[in-house]
Parts: sequence; C-alpha cells; structure tokens
Amino acid sequence: MNEIELIKRLTHKLPTNKSVVVGAGDDCAVLDAGARDRLLLFKTDAVVQGIHFTDATPPEKVGHKALARCLSDIAAMAGTPTAALVTIGLPRKFDAAFVEKIYSGMNTLACHHGVAIVGGETTTNPERILISVALVGSVPRGKALLRSGAKVDDAVFVTGELGGSLAGRHLEFEPRLTEARWLANHFPIRAMIDLSDGLAGDLRHIMKASGVGVELLKTAIPISRAAKAIANRGDAAKPALVAALTDGEDFELLFTVASKEAVPLLDAWKKQFPKLKLSCIGKVVAGQTLTLRDKNGARPFTAPGYVHFA
Amino acid sequence: MNEIELIKRLTHKLPTNKSVVVGAGDDCAVLDAGARDRLLLFKTDAVVQGIHFTDATPPEKVGHKALARCLSDIAAMAGTPTAALVTIGLPRKFDAAFVEKIYSGMNTLACHHGVAIVGGETTTNPERILISVALVGSVPRGKALLRSGAKVDDAVFVTGELGGSLAGRHLEFEPRLTEARWLANHFPIRAMIDLSDGLAGDLRHIMKASGVGVELLKTAIPISRAAKAIANRGDAAKPALVAALTDGEDFELLFTVASKEAVPLLDAWKKQFPKLKLSCIGKVVAGQTLTLRDKNGARPFTAPGYVHFA
Repeated sequence: MNEIELIKRLTHKLPTNKSVVVGAGDDCAVLDAGARDRLLLFKTDAVVQGIHFTDATPPEKVGHKALARCLSDIAAMAGTPTAALVTIGLPRKFDAAFVEKIYSGMNTLACHHGVAIVGGETTTNPERILISVALVGSVPRGKALLRSGAKVDDAVFVTGELGGSLAGRHLEFEPRLTEARWLANHFPIRAMIDLSDGLAGDLRHIMKASGVGVELLKTAIPISRAAKAIANRGDAAKPALVAALTDGEDFELLFTVASKEAVPLLDAWKKQFPKLKLSCIGKVVAGQTLTLRDKNGARPFTAPGYVHFA
Repeated sequence: MNEIELIKRLTHKLPTNKSVVVGAGDDCAVLDAGARDRLLLFKTDAVVQGIHFTDATPPEKVGHKALARCLSDIAAMAGTPTAALVTIGLPRKFDAAFVEKIYSGMNTLACHHGVAIVGGETTTNPERILISVALVGSVPRGKALLRSGAKVDDAVFVTGELGGSLAGRHLEFEPRLTEARWLANHFPIRAMIDLSDGLAGDLRHIMKASGVGVELLKTAIPISRAAKAIANRGDAAKPALVAALTDGEDFELLFTVASKEAVPLLDAWKKQFPKLKLSCIGKVVAGQTLTLRDKNGARPFTAPGYVHFA
C-alpha cells in the first residue's frame, strides 16, 4: 500500500465540525477561527533523516527545508504564514550544536517571511532525526486558492523550472509566498497547488479535485538545468522531460486561470517578477486524462508523479 | 544534555511577530488571529513507539493517547480544541489495519470533544511508528490560564490521583477540558498547568514562571491506587508518595487560586464533579523552593520530576 492509498483509507471518515471550511485533501486545511475578515490556514509537514535529507546535509539547510515545505503549502493557498511549532525527534545521543544549526536555518527563513516560532517539542526517535513543523497562517475570506476550481479551457501555468530538485534545490528553495499572493490579488486564479509530487502527480490532484483533464504542450514545459544535466549522464534513469514531469520536490506554483487572462498575466508577471520564469504549459480540457501534445499529436501521459512509500 | 537544557538553548532567541500573545514556554502558544472575542491556542505533541507506547499497546489506545496529550494542553489553558492535523511516520512495511485502528482511537476521542481532524501527513520513519499531533483551539480573550499567574498565599490544587500512570492510565486518560473551563468560568484561577512531567516537575514550571515557591502538605497529596500497588512490590523503585510527586503522564490539572476561594471552590467542585477528586495540596510561598511539610516540619523536596531524555 502506498501513501496515497493509505491516506485515502485514513481520511475516509474524519470527524468534522462547523469551524471546518476545507478539511483534508488540499494544500492546507482552512478553518473559520472567528475573524471577520480572514480564515485560518493550518498545515503540518515532516522531514526525516535518510529520507528527506542525508547525514551529509548541512543542518541549516535541513531546518530551511523543514519550514520551507510548510510555507510552500501556505503559498499554494495564497495565504500568509503566521506562526510555527517545531517538533523534533532525536536519538538519545544527539549533537546539540547540530540541532541548534537546524533551528538556525529555520529561524532565518522564519524571519525572512515574518513567521513567529512559538515553541514545539523535543522527543526521542532513537535511530534518526525527524522534524515535524506545524504552521498556522491566514488568508482573506474568499481569497483561498483551492485545487478544485479549475475549469475547462483554463490556461495552465507553472513557475520556475522543473525536475532534478534532489540535486540540491530541494534544500534551498524559496517558498513562493509573495508570488502567490500577487497572483491571487491581481488575477482570477481558478486553482492552485504547490509542486511536491512532481508536475504530473500534482496536475492529477488538480484534475481530480476539479473534475477535469489537462493537455500539456510538450515544448512548453520548463526543464531545469539540473534535470538536463542528470539526463545527459550515461546512467540517467529518465529523459529530462520525464524528470520535469515526475521528479518530486520542485516547490513551484502550478495554477490555472481563464484563458483570456493568460497573456495579460504573462505580461504583468514579467514586470513584477523579472527573475522568475513563468510558463503557460497547457490547458484544461474535459475528461479525466492528462495528455501530452507534441508535433505528432496528443497522447496520454501515464507515468506517475513521485509516490511516497514507493 | 537533557530535554530541558536543549529546549532552553533552542528557544533562547526565536523569531516572533505581533500575532504572538504567549510564545514558547507555556502549555500552548497563544496567538491573536484577528477574532474580536477570542485568541487562538496552538500546540503540538508526539508519541513514539517504544518510548510512549510499546509494541503490545492496542492501537486504538495509541491513537487515544496521541490526541489526548494535546487536548490536555488545551485544557491547561482553559481552552476549547477546534481542529487537529496528524502526522504519522511509518516503517516501509506497515500494517494498514493497525494504522487504521490508531486513527479509530483518535477519531473516537476527537468526536467526543467536538474536534475536527482536518488532515495531516504520512511519512517514512523506518524503525518505528511516530505520531505527531498538531492542534488549534480557542480561548475567550482574557481567559487563558498561564503558568505565570501564581501569587504568594494562593492555595494549590490538583485533580485526580497521582503516580503510577504508566501502569495503564497514560493510555486511557480523559483530558480535563470540561473541568478546566468550568474552573476558569467560576473562580479566579491564577495559574494552571497539566501534569505531564510529574507533580514536582510541573510545580517547578509554575514556580519558575510565577517567581514563587510552593509548600506541599505531605498528607494531602492524592496517591493513586496504581502507585501504591507498585510501591508495595518488593522491587519498587520508590515509595508511593515519591511516585505521586515524580511519576510522569498523570495529565491531571494543577492550579492555584486565591486562598479565600479554596473552600468555596472545593464545595462547588464536589457538586459539579462528584466523581473526580480535587485536593488542596499546599500553598504558594515566597522564595523559589519546593518544600514538603509533614508533622516534623518542612524540608526541601529536591527529586526531579520526570526528565525526558534522562
């Protein structure tokens, strides 16, 4: 059983109450915490030594990644992060200086985005370090961007360049908080998600939540330099395009917008964020299929995104 | 380095912002999330296989404990829990039925207290199951009970009976949410904490936060039947009274109130909660010392509470 199947079983019948606006299944939970003008965003995410980072990863980068992953989920809702709690599981003999450097990486990123760290917990996890970050944030009422809003004929966009993140970017990426809020404030964005499972996998999350299909234009998919370099090696597991479609941990924004807004959005983006690439990579179509179009026509793309536990 | 020393180093200079009402160091963080009438409570807590439960623990009880610990912290602030996120670290080969039963135990407790479970995450923790619960709740503005409010001459109270929790109660305890809110609504409670580190250890948290000492009356300390049974065994590590003072995981409420309220409070409590013992166990005094008074006089009690990592 992989992570997706397990989560499906576990989230089948969860307890709910009237505070819940959006429960399990989007980038963050959305709660009504009684504020007139805003809703509460709530998210947790964990990184584990030997899984999400190695023994050789600089501890500051471990801390950066642990918090940045959660921040990226707040970005995907067009929200603003407020405060974090950090739970850290440690072997009985731990290196206090190493742990302090993990916090240092986290604190630097938190300061940069105005996030308070308001406590947490240390516990014993004998074999390896595990860091679980819980984050609350806010979004103006009516402004949360869900996975479920995509409509047929929408244009599909992605920020940055994709694939090969595990070569280094996954430890250093900047969550797209500013960009996401700017998008939500200036354009009628229909659906948004942050890329953690790979473009194809996360597109399928939007497709499923919105009840639509997507047709990607092969030549429009932005492939990272890292993905190209890896694909050019003799032992490459997959071509660069497939890496861009299926590698995990890009932490870029994937979103859809009404097609008539596509060109104005691209123009405004170039002025606002001249250093960050934005690509229109395809369109939302009827059906439930993810297809890839090239000069020979369109065919279904069936390779999965990154599947945890796989 | 033990948990307390590490936390001291890690929480020395945490990033903050204007939403923070109470940061690290109390039972929950308290945040201003923009609601006119209430503040947000925010807490995480983790349980680990082999540390907080054994391979033989029924999975429903593992789930119950994982959520109940967090709920107990919300209780300690006189708050109401709203929604939880559950992060679960699993070995690669996990028993899906076992994990579902963990959730079943959590869901039952969540329903009982009107708590929504709004998602979470599964991740890989190869050697053992780790469950980290994040919880948000609310408390009316001005009603949060902190550790820092105790004043000299206050009476010190504790609910229930203490010690020997690891014999079974730690897996089944009911968080004292109703009782704590009733206390906050009917009496001017000065300081409150839930017992997780043992009576002596948690009293020291109140003493340190409030800048006071406490004198306990030896004969007034409620000792659980389990603690007495363990102490009567030939191989007992400590007398029953010391167990009641230093065993962890009681998850009862410890609080102080102005001494003139002590008798009215005891009377009202008996009518309201006839099945749950409430004991006045001593008084707040000047200084920084925890003393234990018996018929021969008062002497300092120096044994520590339960120290994690010890």
